[in-house]
Amino acid sequence: MPYPLLEKADTPDGLKLLDVRDLPKLAQEMREFIIESVSGRTGGHLGSGLGTVELTIALHYHYKMLNHDSVVYDVGHQCYPHKLLTGRRSQFGGLRQYHGISGFPDPKESPYDLVKTGHGGTSLSTALGIAIANKQLGHADRTSVAVIGDGALQEGQALEALNHGGDLRDLKYLVILNDNEHGIGPATGALASYFSKFRTSHAYTSAKRDIKRVLKSLEESTGSVGKALHDVLDHVKAGMHGLMPATHPGVLFEELGYFYYGPIDGHDIDALLEAFENIARVPKPVLLHVLTKKGKGFKDDVPDHYAYHAAKTSSKLTSHLPKEFARMGGPSYTDVFVEKTQELMSRDPKVVAITAAMLQGTGLEIVQKKYPERVFDVGMAEQHAVGFAQGLKLGGMKPLCAIYSTFLQRSVDQLFQELALIKLPVLLALDRAGLVGPDGATHNGVFDIAYISMLPNFVLMAPRDATELRNMMEFGLELGLPAAVRFPRTNSARPEQEYEHKTPLELGKAEILQEGADGVVFAYGSMVYHAMEAAEIVAGRYGKKLTVVNARFAKPLDEALFAPLIEKMPFVFTVEEHCRRGGFGSHVLEFANRARLDANKIEILAIEDRFVDHGARCEVLSEVGLDPAGIAASIEKRMGLRQGAARPDSRRTVPTGSGVVG
Amino acid sequence: MPYPLLEKADTPDGLKLLDVRDLPKLAQEMREFIIESVSGRTGGHLGSGLGTVELTIALHYHYKMLNHDSVVYDVGHQCYPHKLLTGRRSQFGGLRQYHGISGFPDPKESPYDLVKTGHGGTSLSTALGIAIANKQLGHADRTSVAVIGDGALQEGQALEALNHGGDLRDLKYLVILNDNEHGIGPATGALASYFSKFRTSHAYTSAKRDIKRVLKSLEESTGSVGKALHDVLDHVKAGMHGLMPATHPGVLFEELGYFYYGPIDGHDIDALLEAFENIARVPKPVLLHVLTKKGKGFKDDVPDHYAYHAAKTSSKLTSHLPKEFARMGGPSYTDVFVEKTQELMSRDPKVVAITAAMLQGTGLEIVQKKYPERVFDVGMAEQHAVGFAQGLKLGGMKPLCAIYSTFLQRSVDQLFQELALIKLPVLLALDRAGLVGPDGATHNGVFDIAYISMLPNFVLMAPRDATELRNMMEFGLELGLPAAVRFPRTNSARPEQEYEHKTPLELGKAEILQEGADGVVFAYGSMVYHAMEAAEIVAGRYGKKLTVVNARFAKPLDEALFAPLIEKMPFVFTVEEHCRRGGFGSHVLEFANRARLDANKIEILAIEDRFVDHGARCEVLSEVGLDPAGIAASIEKRMGLRQGAARPDSRRTVPTGSGVVG
Repeated sequence: MPYPLLEKADTPDGLKLLDVRDLPKLAQEMREFIIESVSGRTGGHLGSGLGTVELTIALHYHYKMLNHDSVVYDVGHQCYPHKLLTGRRSQFGGLRQYHGISGFPDPKESPYDLVKTGHGGTSLSTALGIAIANKQLGHADRTSVAVIGDGALQEGQALEALNHGGDLRDLKYLVILNDNEHGIGPATGALASYFSKFRTSHAYTSAKRDIKRVLKSLEESTGSVGKALHDVLDHVKAGMHGLMPATHPGVLFEELGYFYYGPIDGHDIDALLEAFENIARVPKPVLLHVLTKKGKGFKDDVPDHYAYHAAKTSSKLTSHLPKEFARMGGPSYTDVFVEKTQELMSRDPKVVAITAAMLQGTGLEIVQKKYPERVFDVGMAEQHAVGFAQGLKLGGMKPLCAIYSTFLQRSVDQLFQELALIKLPVLLALDRAGLVGPDGATHNGVFDIAYISMLPNFVLMAPRDATELRNMMEFGLELGLPAAVRFPRTNSARPEQEYEHKTPLELGKAEILQEGADGVVFAYGSMVYHAMEAAEIVAGRYGKKLTVVNARFAKPLDEALFAPLIEKMPFVFTVEEHCRRGGFGSHVLEFANRARLDANKIEILAIEDRFVDHGARCEVLSEVGLDPAGIAASIEKRMGLRQGAARPDSRRTVPTGSGVVG
Repeated sequence: MPYPLLEKADTPDGLKLLDVRDLPKLAQEMREFIIESVSGRTGGHLGSGLGTVELTIALHYHYKMLNHDSVVYDVGHQCYPHKLLTGRRSQFGGLRQYHGISGFPDPKESPYDLVKTGHGGTSLSTALGIAIANKQLGHADRTSVAVIGDGALQEGQALEALNHGGDLRDLKYLVILNDNEHGIGPATGALASYFSKFRTSHAYTSAKRDIKRVLKSLEESTGSVGKALHDVLDHVKAGMHGLMPATHPGVLFEELGYFYYGPIDGHDIDALLEAFENIARVPKPVLLHVLTKKGKGFKDDVPDHYAYHAAKTSSKLTSHLPKEFARMGGPSYTDVFVEKTQELMSRDPKVVAITAAMLQGTGLEIVQKKYPERVFDVGMAEQHAVGFAQGLKLGGMKPLCAIYSTFLQRSVDQLFQELALIKLPVLLALDRAGLVGPDGATHNGVFDIAYISMLPNFVLMAPRDATELRNMMEFGLELGLPAAVRFPRTNSARPEQEYEHKTPLELGKAEILQEGADGVVFAYGSMVYHAMEAAEIVAGRYGKKLTVVNARFAKPLDEALFAPLIEKMPFVFTVEEHCRRGGFGSHVLEFANRARLDANKIEILAIEDRFVDHGARCEVLSEVGLDPAGIAASIEKRMGLRQGAARPDSRRTVPTGSGVVG
C-alpha cells in the first residue's frame, strides 16, 4: 500500500495507536495523499490543508475530539487532514463533487465536524461558547480549541470574540493562531504587519524555554491549577518582559488577557505536543502562536500564494459536464468586471475599488497592479469595507465595492445605516451571486436580493451578459443612489452571440427580448439566456410563443412595462437564481398585488427554501430546475402542455445536464 | 439671557470669535442648557452629551468642520453639544419629538452632520475613508476625526477599521477614544479591563510632557512633517518605553501602528487644544485617548450609569398622547421577557442568556443579579453574540440570545452560517421589533422578518400579548430548531383584558380570535390587538363582521388554516409592524400564489418602502396607518365602504411603487 500509516490512522483511535516517532512519516504520507488527490484530480483548497497537516495530527493525537475535547477550524479550508483522520479518506475522490464530500467541515458527514463553515472569523466565538458550556456543566477536563489563520483573525467577529474571551478566567479555551503570513491572499492590515515583524525573529525562543520550565516547577509545587497559579503566572510573565525585546509577538495578546505561548514551528509535531502538555496547566485563555507554511510540500519553490490556495479540478472530472446555456463561452463575469473597472479608473481618477481579502477572487489584483493607490484590500472585513466605502464617497471619491454575494451578508447593517439611510451613492459589485458550484451551501449567493431590496433607496440590477455588465457598472457608478449589481460565478455568452442590445440602460427600465402571445417570462440577470433557451424549447416542442423580458432591475421594477404584460398574458413566469423568499419574483408578485393586477397568473421559478450543496454549477442549477431544460419543464407544466412533477426541484435523481427532458 | 456665550457660539464661526479663556464658561452654559432641556423636558441620551461638552467645543474651536476637516461621532448619542454649536439650539425643544430634530446626527438637519448614526462601531471606517479621500484628492491640510467610546470600540467593525488604519501612513486621521469606562452599560471584555487599569494611573503624565517637548523641538528642526519625522518619532517613542511602566495604555495601539497620545483629561479644554496642535504634526494615524465622565454635571453623586445614559421624556410632553390600543396597560414586553427568563432559568440550569451591551435595555440586568454565571454580556458585539450562542448550544446549554431587532442586522451572516445552516436550536429574542418611537429610523426594527425568513430552517414567531410571549419563549427554547420571537417596545394588554387563550401553541399553528363572513384579517404579533380593534371599528361603523386571525408564526405559516379562509372570504388583509418587502404579508401572498389560491383578494398592510423617523410610537404608528384607526380605514376603503386615501400613510401622495427611486 502506498499509504500504510494513513490507513492505520483512519480514525483518531487508530492514530493514537501509532508511535509518536511515526507521526512525521504519517504527515508525509498525508501530504502526498492530499497533493495527489486534490491537485491531481478533484481540485480544492490545497494550501491551507497542507499547512496544517502536523497541527491536525498533533491535535488528534493529544486530545480526544469526540464528546470530550473539541476543535473548530476557522473558515474550514484547512479541514482536509482532519477529514482524513476522521474516517473520510475513501471519499476523497468525491471531494467537492456532486453528491461527494464537502470541501468544508460539515456535521452531516461526521460527528467530528461540530459546525459547517466557509465564512471566516467565527471559530473563536464558537469555541468560547463551548468552553464556557464545558465549565458550567462541570466538564473541567475538556479543552475547547479554535484554529484560526492570521487572515481570519482580522474579521470583526473574531476580534469581538478575542475581546470577550480575554477577560475570562478558569477556562480550558485554546486559540491556535495559525500564522502563515496570508489568508487567501497576502494578509493586509496592522495585525499582518505586526505578525510579520516577528516571523523571522528567534529572540523569543529562549524566553519560551523559561516559561516551560517555570510552568513545570509551578505545577510541581502547587499540584493544581487555580486562581493562585494564575496570579503567579502573571507575575512571572511580567517579570520576564524585562528580559525580552521591548516588543514581542505576545504583547498584543497578553495586553488583552491571554496567556501567550509561542511562536513555535507548526510543522514540528514534538513541539506541538509539548505545547499542548504545557498549556493544559494554564487556567486562562491561551493563545498558541504557530508558524506554518501554506502549501507546504507542494511545488515548494513556486511562490504563488493563490495556486497554493486553490487547485483546479482535473478536466477529466469535468469534461462530461454540459454548458449551462447554449451561447455560453464568452469571458467570465469576473474578467469583464476587471476590464471595465480598469477602464472606469483610467477615465476618472476619483474611481476607487474596495475588496475584503478577495483581491484575486474579485480580479482586482490585476487592477491593483495598474492603480496601486486606488484599489484597497481592507482584509477579511466586510463590515468595514462598506463603511470605508461610505467614507471614501463622503470624501469625494467614487467607490466601487466588490464583495461576494454570500460575504456581503456580513454587511447588512452597514448597507442599512451607512448607505441606504442617507441615500449614499456607492456601487456594490456582487460577484458569485447565485449558485457557486463546488464550494456549496456556505458560498451560494442566493439571499442578496432579499437582504438588499428590503432597504429603502437601494437600486438592484443584474446583467444578462458581458455587455450589460459593463453598461450597469458605468450606469451604477454615476447613478447618485446606493446600488448593487449582481453577477454569477460563470462565463457570459460569446460576444458574437449576445442578443442584440437595442434598448439603452435606464433606471428601472426592462427590455423585451422576444415577443409572443402565449405567456411572458420575466427573467433576471443570469437567468435571461436560460429563459430564452427555455422559450425556444417550449416553442420547438409545442409551438407556443413566449414573450421574454430581461428585467434588468429587481428594484425598482419596470412597472410600466410589467403591468400591461401581466394584464394581457395568460401565463406569467419569473425566473431568478435566488431564493424564492424576498427575491425578484416575490417582488413582481407584490407589485401585481398592489397594482390590482391578476397575481394568480404568476409562477415564480426560484430556489426553494433549503440549502443547496456543492457540485458543478450546471449540476446544481439542474437540481433546482434553473437550467434551460428545467425552466422549460416548469413552463410546460404550468401551461398544461405536459404532465409530471410541477418543478424538477428536488433531490431526486434528475438526468443531469442532458439538455433533454423526458 | 441665561446663556450669553451659548448664544454667541450658535455656529462654529461664532464659537471661534470667543476668547479661549471663555470656553470653560461656555461648557458650563452648555451643560446647564442640556440638562434643563433634556432632563427637564424632552428626554434623551443625556450622559454621552454631557461627557463630551468640552471635547466638542475644542473640536469646533480648533478645526474647520465644513468642507474642510470633518468629525464623525460614533453611535451619535454624544451629538447634542455638536448640534448646539451648529445652529440647532432653538430646535432643542423638539428633540426626539414628532417632526422635531433627531437625537442622532442627521445630514437632513445640517451639513455639519456627515452621516446618520445610531448603530455603533462605524465611525472609524467612515473617518478613515474620508482621510484617504482627502489624501488622494490633494487635501493634505484636512483632518478627518472619529470620536468613539470605549464601548463602541469593541464592535467588530471598529476593530476591523482599527486594523486597516494602523497600517497606513501619511494620513491626517485622528481617532479620539472617549474613554468613559462604559458604553450604555458598564463596558465589558478585555479592552474594558485594559483601559480601566490605567484610568487612575498618573505615571504616564510626565512621559506625555516629554512627547510634547520632543514633538516641538522636532518640528523646529525639521520644519515639516513626513517620513523622516515619522521614523524619528517611532524611535523616540520606542526609547521612552524603557522609562514607562512595563505596560502603559498605549502599547496596544502602538503595536497596531497608531501614534498614541494620552491619556488626557477630556474635560480640560486647554489640554485638548494643545493635543490637537501637537497631533497636527504627526504624519500617521493618531489615537488620542481622552478620559471623560459620562453624565458630568448631572447629579454627580448618584452613580447610576443608566440614568446618565438616557433621561425620560417629561410627562407634560406625552400626556396628550393616546394609547396605542384600547386594552393596553399591561406590563411592557421587556418586563415579561425578564420575568419569564428568570422562571426558565430557575427550572433548568442549562438555560443561559446572552446580550450584546444591552443588559439594561433587554432587562437582563435584573436576571444577571440572580444568575450572574448564566447571563453573558459580550459587549457591543452582535456577531460574536450569535456565534457564542452557537458554541454554548454545541456545548450542551440552552441559549436565549436577546438582541434588538435593529441590531441583529449585524448578525445576518451568523444567523445564516452558525444557526440556519446546521439547524441549530438557539432562541433569539428580538426586543424593539417594530417602530421604536423617539430613537427613530436607525432603531426601528422593521426588517427582521425579511432577513431571517429568507434563511431555511428558521422559525419566526411573534406574540399577541404577555401570556403568548411567555408561551413562545417556553416553546422556542425546547423547539429543536433555530427560532426568533419578536416583540415591540411597548406595553402589552392588561392581563385581565387579554383575549382568551384557547388554542395551545403549536409549531406553525395560528389561532382564530373572532369569526365573521365579510373578510379576514391575518394579524402578526403586535398588530393582533390593533386588528381586533380595527374590526370592531368597521363593525360598529358599517355592520361588517371580520374574521381575525392571530398568525403567531410568520414561518412556517399555518397553511391549513389560511388556505380555506383565503378561498372563501371576499377580502383578505394582512397586518404587520414591518416593512412590506419580505414581510409577513409578502409571505402570505407567496403562499396563496404557490397554492393557486386567489391572491388578488389579499391586501398587505405594512410599512411602505421608506424610513420612518422619530416621534412617539403611537404617532409614528398612526403615520404609517398601523394604529387601529388606520387599519380600519384601509379595510373600509378596500371593502368599498368609504372613499378617500387608500391608506393614511401621510408622507406619500401617490401609491408607492416598488422602489422609492422613480
